[in-house]
Amino acid sequence: MISAEVTIAIQFYDLDPMRIVWHGNYPRFLEQARAALFDKISFGYREMAQSGFAWPVVELRIKYVRPINPGNAIKVTATLTEYENRLKTSYIITDAATGEVCTKAHTIQVTVDRASNELCFETPEALVEKIRRAL
Amino acid sequence: MISAEVTIAIQFYDLDPMRIVWHGNYPRFLEQARAALFDKISFGYREMAQSGFAWPVVELRIKYVRPINPGNAIKVTATLTEYENRLKTSYIITDAATGEVCTKAHTIQVTVDRASNELCFETPEALVEKIRRAL
Amino acid sequence: MISAEVTIAIQFYDLDPMRIVWHGNYPRFLEQARAALFDKISFGYREMAQSGFAWPVVELRIKYVRPINPGNAIKVTATLTEYENRLKTSYIITDAATGEVCTKAHTIQVTVDRASNELCFETPEALVEKIRRAL
Amino acid sequence: MISAEVTIAIQFYDLDPMRIVWHGNYPRFLEQARAALFDKISFGYREMAQSGFAWPVVELRIKYVRPINPGNAIKVTATLTEYENRLKTSYIITDAATGEVCTKAHTIQVTVDRASNELCFETPEALVEKIRRAL
Repeated sequence: MISAEVTIAIQFYDLDPMRIVWHGNYPRFLEQARAALFDKISFGYREMAQSGFAWPVVELRIKYVRPINPGNAIKVTATLTEYENRLKTSYIITDAATGEVCTKAHTIQVTVDRASNELCFETPEALVEKIRRAL
Repeated sequence: MISAEVTIAIQFYDLDPMRIVWHGNYPRFLEQARAALFDKISFGYREMAQSGFAWPVVELRIKYVRPINPGNAIKVTATLTEYENRLKTSYIITDAATGEVCTKAHTIQVTVDRASNELCFETPEALVEKIRRAL
Repeated sequence: MISAEVTIAIQFYDLDPMRIVWHGNYPRFLEQARAALFDKISFGYREMAQSGFAWPVVELRIKYVRPINPGNAIKVTATLTEYENRLKTSYIITDAATGEVCTKAHTIQVTVDRASNELCFETPEALVEKIRRAL
Repeated sequence: MISAEVTIAIQFYDLDPMRIVWHGNYPRFLEQARAALFDKISFGYREMAQSGFAWPVVELRIKYVRPINPGNAIKVTATLTEYENRLKTSYIITDAATGEVCTKAHTIQVTVDRASNELCFETPEALVEKIRRAL
């Protein structure tokens, strides 16, 4: 399986009046790790934009297991867990200092042909090949 | 069941380079509807802050059924679907012009006692009473 | 002069740990009012995108005169104060309940020709005409 | 003078439909550099929160000199340029790959006594001392 991880320092602007990270800010953390994952197989935002396809997120699920300690950085690991018909990425966020799991999440993306705006039921060959080479 | 709805105009800053609403912006839309729901039973952010308890979101799930048309406003309906042990709010986003369903979502919140920082397995009486009065 | 105003309810996600609106969230409020201003002269985001030009913001200045009271809505008034060579929009944010001024701001936008990616030193005729008709 | 710099990779969620960084996202970049600056003198968010004072931003000015190239990281340098009566921080954003200046900005913060909620016309001794030690 292909994985990538990023380390992110929590910022003041991530916090809400309860002095925890506002739950709606986590999609930014997940996207940073997912971008690192696709960069790793040389299929980042640029390659996606040039491919003629788009991969909109059709499902997002986040389980907030334990609040993030804003004083410590977080480590976000993204793993590609499905890729043939849709892209499923699973995420674990841990406290970078203690290793404790704070969050589990996944996103599902489908392929859309940008010319016809139609849903593709199989991941395009160009991307599948890059994934297989990296496995 | 208690429901509230808000109408939101999509803004330029909500859009991503694919000219759709960036998926990570939806938690803001959901929170606007959830805030309207809790205002309706007179248990808004202020009352929550003064109650001695907090209700962190522990789960978020969003299914992006159909892209939002940025030219039309959206209607977000929030419904309280569980409240005794935890608060579950279910959401439907529709295109305000066509009525088509764009998004389904839910959030789950638990009660935390702010003095002890401990999880409560029952929703505090003060909130339950306000909910029952509104049902 | 052409003006437009919008009323915005402050949301929980707008607040920072100091329980005031995080200063970096104000550009969203300004943009909502500016969008209303350009919609008023029928030159909104869609017309801009189709015109062959873009109007990037090249300067932003915000003076936070008084903190926004999160319990009250705000009224944001945008006024087009220059348009011949560049677009200057001036903003006043007031507390919708008390009328007190909370914030003064302005943005400056220049015209860029999207085909050549070059700066235009005069606002294109199509936009100037719509502005003059509305004055 | 005290300076700090951070390197930030531009993310997909930073971009707007014109495929440039949305101008309203820059305050996040500035805050990351300002946080690094105050961490450097051991007067970060935690020390601020415990000091009995708050430092709200009362002015923000950003000049967008040149669009950020989303493919390259940016380097944000924050320099404390005034501190006796108010905190003025000046910022330069450069393209980390080419060194070209993309943005110039400043923020001004005043000191507020959190007990009385009153404006202080001098920066509190505890902070001045830390600044002088670092000069």
